[in-house]
Amino acid sequence: MIYLTRRERFNAAHRLFKKEWSDEKNFTVFGKCSNPNWHGHNYVLFITVKGEIDEETGFVINLKDLSKIVRAKIIDKVDHRNLNLDVDFMKGKITSAENIAIAIWEELEKDLVAIKCELHCIKLVETENNSIEYYGKNN
Amino acid sequence: MIYLTRRERFNAAHRLFKKEWSDEKNFTVFGKCSNPNWHGHNYVLFITVKGEIDEETGFVINLKDLSKIVRAKIIDKVDHRNLNLDVDFMKGKITSAENIAIAIWEELEKDLVAIKCELHCIKLVETENNSIEYYGKNN
Amino acid sequence: MIYLTRRERFNAAHRLFKKEWSDEKNFTVFGKCSNPNWHGHNYVLFITVKGEIDEETGFVINLKDLSKIVRAKIIDKVDHRNLNLDVDFMKGKITSAENIAIAIWEELEKDLVAIKCELHCIKLVETENNSIEYYGKNN
Amino acid sequence: MIYLTRRERFNAAHRLFKKEWSDEKNFTVFGKCSNPNWHGHNYVLFITVKGEIDEETGFVINLKDLSKIVRAKIIDKVDHRNLNLDVDFMKGKITSAENIAIAIWEELEKDLVAIKCELHCIKLVETENNSIEYYGKNN
Amino acid sequence: MIYLTRRERFNAAHRLFKKEWSDEKNFTVFGKCSNPNWHGHNYVLFITVKGEIDEETGFVINLKDLSKIVRAKIIDKVDHRNLNLDVDFMKGKITSAENIAIAIWEELEKDLVAIKCELHCIKLVETENNSIEYYGKNN
Amino acid sequence: MIYLTRRERFNAAHRLFKKEWSDEKNFTVFGKCSNPNWHGHNYVLFITVKGEIDEETGFVINLKDLSKIVRAKIIDKVDHRNLNLDVDFMKGKITSAENIAIAIWEELEKDLVAIKCELHCIKLVETENNSIEYYGKNN
Repeated sequence: MIYLTRRERFNAAHRLFKKEWSDEKNFTVFGKCSNPNWHGHNYVLFITVKGEIDEETGFVINLKDLSKIVRAKIIDKVDHRNLNLDVDFMKGKITSAENIAIAIWEELEKDLVAIKCELHCIKLVETENNSIEYYGKNN
Repeated sequence: MIYLTRRERFNAAHRLFKKEWSDEKNFTVFGKCSNPNWHGHNYVLFITVKGEIDEETGFVINLKDLSKIVRAKIIDKVDHRNLNLDVDFMKGKITSAENIAIAIWEELEKDLVAIKCELHCIKLVETENNSIEYYGKNN
Repeated sequence: MIYLTRRERFNAAHRLFKKEWSDEKNFTVFGKCSNPNWHGHNYVLFITVKGEIDEETGFVINLKDLSKIVRAKIIDKVDHRNLNLDVDFMKGKITSAENIAIAIWEELEKDLVAIKCELHCIKLVETENNSIEYYGKNN
Repeated sequence: MIYLTRRERFNAAHRLFKKEWSDEKNFTVFGKCSNPNWHGHNYVLFITVKGEIDEETGFVINLKDLSKIVRAKIIDKVDHRNLNLDVDFMKGKITSAENIAIAIWEELEKDLVAIKCELHCIKLVETENNSIEYYGKNN
Repeated sequence: MIYLTRRERFNAAHRLFKKEWSDEKNFTVFGKCSNPNWHGHNYVLFITVKGEIDEETGFVINLKDLSKIVRAKIIDKVDHRNLNLDVDFMKGKITSAENIAIAIWEELEKDLVAIKCELHCIKLVETENNSIEYYGKNN
Repeated sequence: MIYLTRRERFNAAHRLFKKEWSDEKNFTVFGKCSNPNWHGHNYVLFITVKGEIDEETGFVINLKDLSKIVRAKIIDKVDHRNLNLDVDFMKGKITSAENIAIAIWEELEKDLVAIKCELHCIKLVETENNSIEYYGKNN
């Protein structure tokens, strides 16, 4: 087994809030992250896949193939967007880094199987001080 | 003369657009940065001041004093905010990194004079690939 | 399970030495790290906790709660201090990065249980070239 | 168990290609990485070892000992070299980051045993966007 | 005046040597950088331009226009190439970071004039420890 | 003119205080930086020199020569030391980043003249948020 990690970046707006709650309650729980007019981040996304090495190429997976899928399924949908309003796979969810990471995992998992590649970890860095790692439902 | 640089960070949403223009024209000029539902950044701000060393303290300026001013005048107003909607000193301006840097200069300049400190440079890093430096009107 | 990592920083002095040993022996084993007048580092600390997502908030843990504990139990005690002389939880220990990481784990573990959060990893970066990870006694 | 990571760097030229294939096929599979006149990287290598703490020293392993082995067995052989032409342990192999990481593991494994230290992970960062991790044959 | 900096990256092989000199003399002067089979770097290039702000757009220059020129004139010619063998504008020159920076300046200067933009600085980072800045012939 | 920058690092302990002042006054002015038992930093030092390119070598200055001087005159004296107690060129001075930067300039200036190289800037980074630049007495 060998693990390959690809870094991608996207710049997006979001807001943490629960529409069933008052502004006061939202502020109590989410603090300044619940600002009604949104705020935003330069998100950094690390996608780690694992597999055996293809002896023909010396690759676990051709990075061009991995990149193409990640761009089409994730980056094109979230970059320069509002994560609450513009992104189909975040509809109805709180846009915490935790939920974004899990949603990205679920979007990517199937398509990576199609190229014989197993997803190992989604790491999402929201700021230099805060990041999330997710290894799938059974881990 | 010695130069001291303080780094501060803020996370904000913004949108590049001119309200006199159609969405199409905005998209042609500003591309995905004109997304109507906003996007955002982890902005990194470097404030450089210059001056002579105070022989008593070995400081150009006490960082606590500089930080207090930068927090009160800038960071508290832009962090976790929408630069187009929430920030008084950006009202009516296109929120390009250039305009944000100049506006921050203008906000800080006077208050730094009050603590006998001369502003030298505002550097604003919008993404790891793009940044702006401003040295004041006469430079 | 999802993993959340918080980065904190502290600047501290320390010295590697064993008081039972001569200066020569200390120098042979610890090299310049045994300088009698101390040296110091900008330590970078990564605290990783794990847990299930709270469906109400989308959080594993509210970062404000985690931060408050880490500040009170660790950062306030080690930042701008001498790790050998000023820090209760390092008393009588060699202040190697290994021992600091383990001591931080032991300080934090219980308090995190109190907020229903499980400590997963303490990573301590001493210089850009050297770092330590600790996953608890049973890992 | 505690994990210690040492960072080392080396600057090397390489080319991805299979000599049995035509230039066209090489270009189709490896893209610009198959440029016949080579290209190169500032590789960043993270060596993670694990073990129990030596109570005498507070160390898993004395970094001086680890560094000496990594320099002699790896860095001196790959730094400012051509990975395809100059490096004995890459002879006959495609110089993908995957294969380099595995070869470094195999070079280091035995010598670390000699200093009572167990190799845990070889991480090789080829560019800021691409990296490889290897944990040995049985992991 | 406001200054805008764009970061670009390229991975290239090179060798420092003077063909009139013996291998011994080349090694004495250039050390391991004269390895006959080349070595390589992840070069990081910072292009700084200066100008007045266009009041219509809030931009010194549209980054898309700057990027297009830098890609066509520089990055496409040097990325995944051998700087000694493959790059027209380095022909006959020693490929020191100094000479690469000056050559990039000379390649870009005219084309930037065409888009009403003045080149201010070329910064070339060869390793995390070594970098070059060039401000043009008259500075 | 071309500018070359070399990065070096040193880890040191220090304390900000004035012996003529009470502990209270020291704490009022210098805050936690006046901790009597010291604290410390991973200092990052950027030495920028300027000059014309030597046509024989393509270098402003051979980095090996610059490195040797910086190591002998600065790094060997400050690395893993106490800046207040162990460093001759800081004797009797407050060890603020400002004063350290100026002292390093004064130590290096003459020796660089000896190798026909002009010192341009000393940049000293004390933490990721605070840094100092000094360009000599007349700038």
